[in-house]
Amino acid sequence: MPDSAPYCDYQMTVRVEIPNQPGQFARIATALAEERANLGAIDIVEVRRGRMVRDITFDTESEAHAERVLQRLKAMPNLHVRSASDRLFLLHLGGKIHIRPKVPVRTRNTLAMAYTPGVARVSRAIAADKNKVFAFTSKANSVAVVTDGSAILGLGNLGPEAALPVMEGKSMLFKEFADIDSWPLCLSTQSTDAIVQAVVSIAPSFGGINLEDISAPRCFDIEDRLKHALDIPVMHDDQHGTAVVLLAALHNALKVVGKSLDRIKVVINGLGAAGTACGRILLAAGVQNLIGCDRNGAVLDARGEHLERAKKDLRGCIDFAHPFSSLHEALHGADVFIGVSAGNLLKPADLEVMAPDRIVFAMANPEPEISPELAMPLCRILATGRSDFPNQVNNLLAFPGIFRGALDVRAREINEPMKLAAAQAIANIIPEEHLTEDYIVPSVFDKRIVPAVARAVARAAHDSGVARRAEREIRDS
Amino acid sequence: MPDSAPYCDYQMTVRVEIPNQPGQFARIATALAEERANLGAIDIVEVRRGRMVRDITFDTESEAHAERVLQRLKAMPNLHVRSASDRLFLLHLGGKIHIRPKVPVRTRNTLAMAYTPGVARVSRAIAADKNKVFAFTSKANSVAVVTDGSAILGLGNLGPEAALPVMEGKSMLFKEFADIDSWPLCLSTQSTDAIVQAVVSIAPSFGGINLEDISAPRCFDIEDRLKHALDIPVMHDDQHGTAVVLLAALHNALKVVGKSLDRIKVVINGLGAAGTACGRILLAAGVQNLIGCDRNGAVLDARGEHLERAKKDLRGCIDFAHPFSSLHEALHGADVFIGVSAGNLLKPADLEVMAPDRIVFAMANPEPEISPELAMPLCRILATGRSDFPNQVNNLLAFPGIFRGALDVRAREINEPMKLAAAQAIANIIPEEHLTEDYIVPSVFDKRIVPAVARAVARAAHDSGVARRAEREIRDS
Repeated sequence: MPDSAPYCDYQMTVRVEIPNQPGQFARIATALAEERANLGAIDIVEVRRGRMVRDITFDTESEAHAERVLQRLKAMPNLHVRSASDRLFLLHLGGKIHIRPKVPVRTRNTLAMAYTPGVARVSRAIAADKNKVFAFTSKANSVAVVTDGSAILGLGNLGPEAALPVMEGKSMLFKEFADIDSWPLCLSTQSTDAIVQAVVSIAPSFGGINLEDISAPRCFDIEDRLKHALDIPVMHDDQHGTAVVLLAALHNALKVVGKSLDRIKVVINGLGAAGTACGRILLAAGVQNLIGCDRNGAVLDARGEHLERAKKDLRGCIDFAHPFSSLHEALHGADVFIGVSAGNLLKPADLEVMAPDRIVFAMANPEPEISPELAMPLCRILATGRSDFPNQVNNLLAFPGIFRGALDVRAREINEPMKLAAAQAIANIIPEEHLTEDYIVPSVFDKRIVPAVARAVARAAHDSGVARRAEREIRDS
Repeated sequence: MPDSAPYCDYQMTVRVEIPNQPGQFARIATALAEERANLGAIDIVEVRRGRMVRDITFDTESEAHAERVLQRLKAMPNLHVRSASDRLFLLHLGGKIHIRPKVPVRTRNTLAMAYTPGVARVSRAIAADKNKVFAFTSKANSVAVVTDGSAILGLGNLGPEAALPVMEGKSMLFKEFADIDSWPLCLSTQSTDAIVQAVVSIAPSFGGINLEDISAPRCFDIEDRLKHALDIPVMHDDQHGTAVVLLAALHNALKVVGKSLDRIKVVINGLGAAGTACGRILLAAGVQNLIGCDRNGAVLDARGEHLERAKKDLRGCIDFAHPFSSLHEALHGADVFIGVSAGNLLKPADLEVMAPDRIVFAMANPEPEISPELAMPLCRILATGRSDFPNQVNNLLAFPGIFRGALDVRAREINEPMKLAAAQAIANIIPEEHLTEDYIVPSVFDKRIVPAVARAVARAAHDSGVARRAEREIRDS
C-alpha cells in the first residue's frame, strides 16, 4: 500500500510549546502552509510563565509528508515539539471494538437471573434441546472472524498479532453494516490441520465462521474441511466476497454493453483465492467461455468440452505447469478481463486485442493491473478495487448481507445458490435506467444493500434446503 | 439447584384473551391470589370485538409454582392463554452480550482509517514490533472465557451449548465489574490435548484466558499446560477464584476469633478443582496444619514432616486409595472446616468435636455441607456459597479484580503472590472494627473491591517479576 494512497487519511496532532506572544502561532501556520499541510483543529492545552502549549492538528498527503512537516516544526527556533501523534494510531489506541452486556448487572436480582443460580434453568433447557441455544444465547448472531495472519491485506504473512487490527476492523463492519456480533480470532498456527481443529473446537459458541486473509492454496482446503465438519456457515471472504461483488458488477456491466453471460469470453488473470472463486461463480452463473491465467500464461481452459468438468472441479482443471497460451493471446476476442493478480502487468496492446465494448476489472491492490489513465480510453467499462476511481469492487458490498441472511434463517452453510442470489441482489440495487459505464456498483454506504442481500440469501438458503428456520419466522420475530 | 432457591427470580408473563366485560380481570387477580402468585405489571395488548388481550406478569416461588399457576389459568372458563413466558428466558432471548465498535463507521474517511487501506499502517507497525499489539488493538483488555461444558455450575457435563448462557453471564460480569472485554468460547471437545491446542491457537487475540467449569482432574493438567505454553495470564476460576475468596474470608474470620493462620488446624472436605486450590493457597499463605478429605476419609496430610512436600506438590500428596482417618476423626480439634463437596454430609456431632470458636465454610451449592439452621448454633462463624445467608463466598469478589490487575500491567501469568495479594485486598475492604461473625466478606456490589484487588494484584505482579508494564505507566495512561 503506497503512502500516497489518496483515500487514506494521514492526520497528525502535534503538541508544541511556544512563547506566549503575538505572532507565534502565525509562524507555525506559515510553516504548515509552506509545507502544504492542511491546518485543522487548534487547541490551547496550557498557558504559564510566558509559555503556551498548543495541540495543532493537520492533514498531510502521506506518512512521509507528515514526517517532513514534523521535522520542519522541530527545526524551528523557540518552539519545542512535546509530542506528535498520528490520528490513525490514536483511533486504534486500545482497540476498536468492545463488548457490552445487553442489560446492566447492578442488582442482586439481575445477577441471579443473568448468572447463577438463574442461568442454570436456561442451561438445562438447552441441554434438553440443543436447538434452544439459537434462541437463548448470542450464538445465533455471532460470527468468528478467523485468520492465521498469512495473507494480511496485500502485505503478506505478518502473523496473528499484525492481523488483529484488520480483523477488528472487519468486526466493526459486521456490526455497523449488519448488526452481527463478531469477535476476531487470530490464530498462532498456520498448519492446515491445526487451524481446522481450532475452528471446529470453538464453533459451538458461534453462528458462523468468516475466514479472512488466509493464503492460498491452504485457504481452499481449510474452507472445504470446515464446511464439511460444521453445521454453521463457513465462508472465506477473500474468495467468495470478492467473487460475489465481481459477479454483481459484471451483471450490471453486461446490461450496459448489451451482452449476456452465456455468450461472453472471460479471461481471469491470477488464480489465487479470489481468482479461483471468481471463476467458480462465473461458471455457476452461466459463463461458458472462461480462460484462467497465472504469471506463466493460460493454465485453465473452461470452454467447450472442458466446460462441464471445470464447473464441477475448477481447481482440478488448472494445470500450472503447462500453460497452453499467453495472457496476451488469451485476451484475443475476450469481452471481459478480470484481474486479481498484480499491478501494472497489462499493456494497452493487451486490451487492444479484446472484443469491442471491453469490460476490464483491474482489481489488484493497491496498483491495478493497468493504470486507469491508460485503461480508460481503451475500454468501455473499468472497475478497480480502489475507491478513488468509479466502480469499486469492494467485499463490503457482500459479506455483511450474506452472513445476515444466513444467520437469519440459521443456514447450515453458505452455498452457491446463496452467493448467486447475493450477487443478483447487489446488482439490482441500481435500477437499469440509472446504470452507466461509471455506475455499475452501488455505494457501500447505500442502506438498501444489506437488507436486500440478506433477504435474497435467506430465500436462496430456504429454496436450497439449508435453512433451519423459515423466512416467515423471521418476519414474526 | 432446587427450584425453591429463594434468591432466584421466577417471574412469568402470560398473555390472555378474555371477554371485554367488567369483573373479568378480578377473576384472574383472585385466582392468582389464591395460588399465592404475586401480581405485577398488567398491560392491555389489544381490544376488539368484545374481547380483550392482556399481558399479566406475576412472581412465583419456583418453576413448579409458576407451572401450577399457569395450569390454573388455562383451566379457567372463558379465558384463553395465548402464550406464557418466563422473564428469565426473556432476559436470555438473543443472548446477553454483544459487541460494539468504539467509533461508528459511517463515512468513507473512518472506513479508510479503521479498515483498509489505513489499517495497513497499524498492521505494519505491529509486525515490526509485536509489543505494539497491546497498544493498538483490543488484545490488552480482552479475556477469553473458555469452557468445555464438562462441569457447568453444579449441573455436570451438559456440553458446550448448554454452557454458553453461563459463559455469557461471566462475560457480562467481566465487563460490568472490571471493564474487561471477554468473549465466551465453548469448545466442542473434552480432550485435554485438543483443549490445550485450541486455546494456544486462539491466544494471540486475547490478553488473558479464564478457564471455567472444566471438570477435575483434567482442569489441573489443562491449566498447567496452558500456563507453560502462553505468555498471558491463564486462570481456572473454579479453582483459584474460590480459593482467593476463601482465603480472604478466612483472614477476616481469624481476626474475629483472634487466631492466626500459622497456628490453626484446617480440614478441607472435597479435593476437586476448588478444594485442591483452597489447600494450595492456604499452605502458601502460611497454614501449617491441613488435612484434606474426600468421600472415603482423610487422604491428604499436610502437617509436620509432610508440610514442605505438600507446599510444593499438593496434588502429589493426595492418596485417594488410602485414607488414614475419617472426616469425623480429622475434625477433632480442628479450628476451620472448609467444605467444597456435597450437601448435608456433616452432622452436628461432627462440628462438636472441633476446637472452640469454630469456623465453618460450608460452600457446597446449592445445599451446604450442613444446613445453616443446624450449623449456626454450633459454630462461631459460618460462611456458605449462598447469598441468602451471611458471609457468601462468591468468586465474583475475586476474578474481575485479579484479571483487571493482571491486564493493567500486562502480566505474563497469574501467580501465587498475585492471588495472595488479591485475598488480602478483599479482606481489607472491611475495616477491622466493622468485622463481626456475620460480616467477614464484603458485598459483591461494593465498588471499592475491584480497584483495590486490581492495584494489589498489579503490584504483586510487578514485585514477582511477571509484569511487562510498570504501575507508573498505568497511572499516566
